[in-house]
Amino acid sequence: MKAAQYFGNRDIRVTDVPKPEPKVNEALVAIEWCGICGSDLHEYLIGPAVVPTKDRPHPATGEHVPVTMGHEFCGRIVSAPEDSNLSPGQAVIVDPRIYCGSCARCDDAITNGCHTWGFKGFSGSGGGFSEAVAVGAKMCYPLPDSVDLKLAALIEPLVVAWHAIALVGIDDWSKQSVLILGGGPVGIAHIFVLRAHGCKQIYVSEPATTRAEQNKLIADKVFNPVQEDVGDECRKLTGGEGVDVVFDCAGLPKALDAGMNAVKFKGIYMNVAGWEQPMSLPFQYFMLKELTVKASMAYDDRHFKETVDAFVAGKFKGAESMITSTIHIDDIVEKGFEELVSNKDQHIKVLVTAHKDKL
Amino acid sequence: MKAAQYFGNRDIRVTDVPKPEPKVNEALVAIEWCGICGSDLHEYLIGPAVVPTKDRPHPATGEHVPVTMGHEFCGRIVSAPEDSNLSPGQAVIVDPRIYCGSCARCDDAITNGCHTWGFKGFSGSGGGFSEAVAVGAKMCYPLPDSVDLKLAALIEPLVVAWHAIALVGIDDWSKQSVLILGGGPVGIAHIFVLRAHGCKQIYVSEPATTRAEQNKLIADKVFNPVQEDVGDECRKLTGGEGVDVVFDCAGLPKALDAGMNAVKFKGIYMNVAGWEQPMSLPFQYFMLKELTVKASMAYDDRHFKETVDAFVAGKFKGAESMITSTIHIDDIVEKGFEELVSNKDQHIKVLVTAHKDKL
Repeated sequence: MKAAQYFGNRDIRVTDVPKPEPKVNEALVAIEWCGICGSDLHEYLIGPAVVPTKDRPHPATGEHVPVTMGHEFCGRIVSAPEDSNLSPGQAVIVDPRIYCGSCARCDDAITNGCHTWGFKGFSGSGGGFSEAVAVGAKMCYPLPDSVDLKLAALIEPLVVAWHAIALVGIDDWSKQSVLILGGGPVGIAHIFVLRAHGCKQIYVSEPATTRAEQNKLIADKVFNPVQEDVGDECRKLTGGEGVDVVFDCAGLPKALDAGMNAVKFKGIYMNVAGWEQPMSLPFQYFMLKELTVKASMAYDDRHFKETVDAFVAGKFKGAESMITSTIHIDDIVEKGFEELVSNKDQHIKVLVTAHKDKL
Repeated sequence: MKAAQYFGNRDIRVTDVPKPEPKVNEALVAIEWCGICGSDLHEYLIGPAVVPTKDRPHPATGEHVPVTMGHEFCGRIVSAPEDSNLSPGQAVIVDPRIYCGSCARCDDAITNGCHTWGFKGFSGSGGGFSEAVAVGAKMCYPLPDSVDLKLAALIEPLVVAWHAIALVGIDDWSKQSVLILGGGPVGIAHIFVLRAHGCKQIYVSEPATTRAEQNKLIADKVFNPVQEDVGDECRKLTGGEGVDVVFDCAGLPKALDAGMNAVKFKGIYMNVAGWEQPMSLPFQYFMLKELTVKASMAYDDRHFKETVDAFVAGKFKGAESMITSTIHIDDIVEKGFEELVSNKDQHIKVLVTAHKDKL
């Protein structure tokens, strides 16, 4: 079958690989759609970082480059274990994580802290940029037949936001004002999840014009951090004290500074971004405002399920606007990765399929 | 009257200043003891940083260098407003903070976030290294006559620890394991307050031999971070996962790294330290363990009162061991500041008095 595999830095090849053979607890899933994630692009440009190399194969899969990429995928069941609730043809979204299920952290339901965690699409054992994947049956979440699977491919990035928002620890978002740093795919996913939680006010700081225009359609206010003092603007909109919570989906020192300036005394700063340079806390805000700085790392079973339930319940109205391009796997390098390199700001989510008839 | 005033970098002079004249809401307090704080020493060595200079007088006091130093002070009432609960001779510990009491943050009881906050002993309006201070009557907390005022001078540093520990947000400390980075005065104050809270296990990381020996008398375990892997040692003592909470009383990158290594997944890292270099979060711990990093800044009315109550109730047994030297104000430079510069590790708290008969 076809699969887009990562061989190394800026070297992704569509090759022919053996069809996966499911183990006893696994389902075989025929993939329909898989999104390209910022972390895929990151690995393409400056990896191998997450993808295991020959000298350090992945501890859970034993695999290394080349590996099939793609972890934001959905599809339909081909075969499933008899004792599962899955039957052939069933539409599913797949939790692509790999965890042992038996270490102390997994026992505590902190599966994102598993000592041998990984991801299908990075760590071996297949990935979403292919025709099929064998995956543990319990990682497959059934979807109603009426669901457009193109939209279901957006669930995984929404789970990332759902988890970060849950970790903030606020039960009632209806009185909260939020600033999101960076209006790219991760930032936009946060807007949709915050809307689903009934968040009072959502502001975005985004310097790129096209993204800012997209953001304006769904946020309450979008700031240009190059032209405006984001801290002052947030204080104006919040009675003088600043926003309650900041989500950092940018990972840049200037954004950090603006975000910590904009958050209220004793406010919460949640980092969701990967950082390529040191994340140094500006003390005039961090200490003098007694801020709480938190980190969110992927997600866990509970938040995957909650997001799927919210998706099925229709809580992410308008999320289809995140899809800016749908392409065939044969074109994944040119119209996928290289397009995102050249025209990043024109895109939110590029979806890939191996089925020409879906396009 | 005598007062030790800060004139500039490494320039503290014992001079004669006018006796303060209390305003209508103020009490006049005859000072008995005042401790030298790490922040006093910091200002002596690399200031003026907190002390207002001629070109930026303090917004609340209007004063600038020279200012009387000392903010960890206690004494006895000389005179007090009629409508206060204070009468001459009453032993008191003074909350040395300056705040307006009328801004939005003060209204919310976040007095340590007051936009014009300051400290007696740094910001003008007198300080504890002198014979007397005029201070708002409500800033004076009465103490029983039986209290040894030498010990009462330790209350202020204990409030700093009390506030940081309260901000962690844990109600029941009896099941918590804690690592304190830095076993100096601030770290030791944390040990006493954590003991008062019934904390289960208290570990300290301290490289200096004399301090480590002092720490061993009151902590459950003391690590030498130069010779031991503090993370590994903490995991050994906590069933493999690391400590629940870290208090950073060191403010150094190596300590930060060790502390974040030692804390459990989803653990809490509370920074109490001032940093002279950037506080850059090590991502392999901060992100991958989804840590919460918090900051504590001085204290507020509630935590001052709670600490005084705990002190009066005898909850800080053994805290007298913090006093390593008592000196006369005339000797404050040589036996106080310069002694702390030369023999920092030999001291925890140096107390100063203007009364020769108290020595």
